[in-house]
Amino acid sequence: MRNKPARKLRELLRLPPGERVDLSRYDARATPGAPDGRRAAEAEADRMGTQLARLQERLWAAATAGDHRRVLLVLQGMDTSGKGGTVKHVIGQLNPSGCRITAFKAPSEEERGHDFLWRVRRALPEPGEIGIFDRSHYEDVLIARVRHLARPAEIGSRYGLINDFERSLAEDGVTLVKCFLHLSYDEQRRRLLRRLDRPDKRWKFTPGDIDERALWPDYQKAYELALERCAAPYAPWYLVPADRKWYRNWAISRLLLERLRELDPRYPEADFDVADCRERLLKET
Amino acid sequence: MRNKPARKLRELLRLPPGERVDLSRYDARATPGAPDGRRAAEAEADRMGTQLARLQERLWAAATAGDHRRVLLVLQGMDTSGKGGTVKHVIGQLNPSGCRITAFKAPSEEERGHDFLWRVRRALPEPGEIGIFDRSHYEDVLIARVRHLARPAEIGSRYGLINDFERSLAEDGVTLVKCFLHLSYDEQRRRLLRRLDRPDKRWKFTPGDIDERALWPDYQKAYELALERCAAPYAPWYLVPADRKWYRNWAISRLLLERLRELDPRYPEADFDVADCRERLLKET
Repeated sequence: MRNKPARKLRELLRLPPGERVDLSRYDARATPGAPDGRRAAEAEADRMGTQLARLQERLWAAATAGDHRRVLLVLQGMDTSGKGGTVKHVIGQLNPSGCRITAFKAPSEEERGHDFLWRVRRALPEPGEIGIFDRSHYEDVLIARVRHLARPAEIGSRYGLINDFERSLAEDGVTLVKCFLHLSYDEQRRRLLRRLDRPDKRWKFTPGDIDERALWPDYQKAYELALERCAAPYAPWYLVPADRKWYRNWAISRLLLERLRELDPRYPEADFDVADCRERLLKET
Repeated sequence: MRNKPARKLRELLRLPPGERVDLSRYDARATPGAPDGRRAAEAEADRMGTQLARLQERLWAAATAGDHRRVLLVLQGMDTSGKGGTVKHVIGQLNPSGCRITAFKAPSEEERGHDFLWRVRRALPEPGEIGIFDRSHYEDVLIARVRHLARPAEIGSRYGLINDFERSLAEDGVTLVKCFLHLSYDEQRRRLLRRLDRPDKRWKFTPGDIDERALWPDYQKAYELALERCAAPYAPWYLVPADRKWYRNWAISRLLLERLRELDPRYPEADFDVADCRERLLKET
């Protein structure tokens, strides 16, 4: 039964707002809600790609007639957890015109001169678009906390600021899909070793990745706090087990599909006289 | 023989710099250099998609090690000529993370407060990226000319400014691939009628499209001038017959592939001690 999605996937993966999060209780190799086996999941993810692209076109079309709704996929997770892979494989199935993708790096000098949400506001999707954040404003309560990049009181205040910000987005027509890609410590080692061993993967590696990895428990703790404090009904967190790439792709496709189906965007009606336009075109010589 | 690409496609489609352009001499239904028939071209375009994605990853990887090169695809053409379709079908095969797509609309008030290249500079690809312009700075010598949106002397000065700008881009490592999607007047009518007849296409239509169409000869003339005056060895124009969508997709994939192969981007060598990093990872418990 467990492998039949009787319930919506997002009910299975959503972290309940207001509850403590203990990441050690979640199996990163789990495949909740997935079809039986990798092959079936990959085939289903392909089919969902087509459905996602169709709904994306409708969302875009609706925006041309004044519909303000848009979607924002937030991807967070440890190094190698598959944020980039999700963009490549899941978002890669959509029409790139309608996607606004931002990979947030360490803030530039200009960005550091503003409040931490400044650069995020500038990267938001426009009506009809699907925004994708590869890392996000959450870095300001994750690496910032672990690496002491700001005073504790300041970091403490950011959770509330994030909640206010996300509420304002939701009220402005943004459907937030926040995914934490839950990777195990062992799987990260395997992936880092693979990056070292393959000359075509080595460019993704820096020795700093090993230093970050040494802070694994601190990062897990920082994630637990962020997932606890910034989960709201209008902006839930989904915990996506990410040790299996095929599951991660399937699950994120599914989460997006569920949300887009609920939005149910429609092609707009013509606000002009179709018959008249037809006639004008046909009357030409 | 004509259907075997003995020569590079870009030699077949390039408009010779310095020569007069008479668009009426080019058949918009032609398929220069294409494999035999639609099905073969579509299959080849699929295969090229995979090759393009591989080269794109190398371009991106090389940039992480300081390679400044990037590609800029400029798409121009009359309404319905397939600029959006090219993004969807050709660019849709790439990794969206590495693509920077900009659709230029009528300039905003802020944009009108700057020189006409201002908004274009802000949309340029970063090193390692493939930039895509759906319309571009050429609108400022196309619709601007046809609709008298600036004084004639000002428009006249823009060709030189565009050439200077594009030369500076080329010198800065930008490979320019400028494609004029050459559509016939009749095919545009068919496509506009299809947009009117299909409820899921109607949102792409506005009655203003018919008004623009009435200016067809003026637009063709404005294109001829732009193609003549702004074709340079470092920034050639390719005339892509666009009445057949499958040919358009095949040809633009091919042009991109030829240029990327020439760039021959390479995965960078590691600038750190791989063996040492391996050991550090394996030593962990």
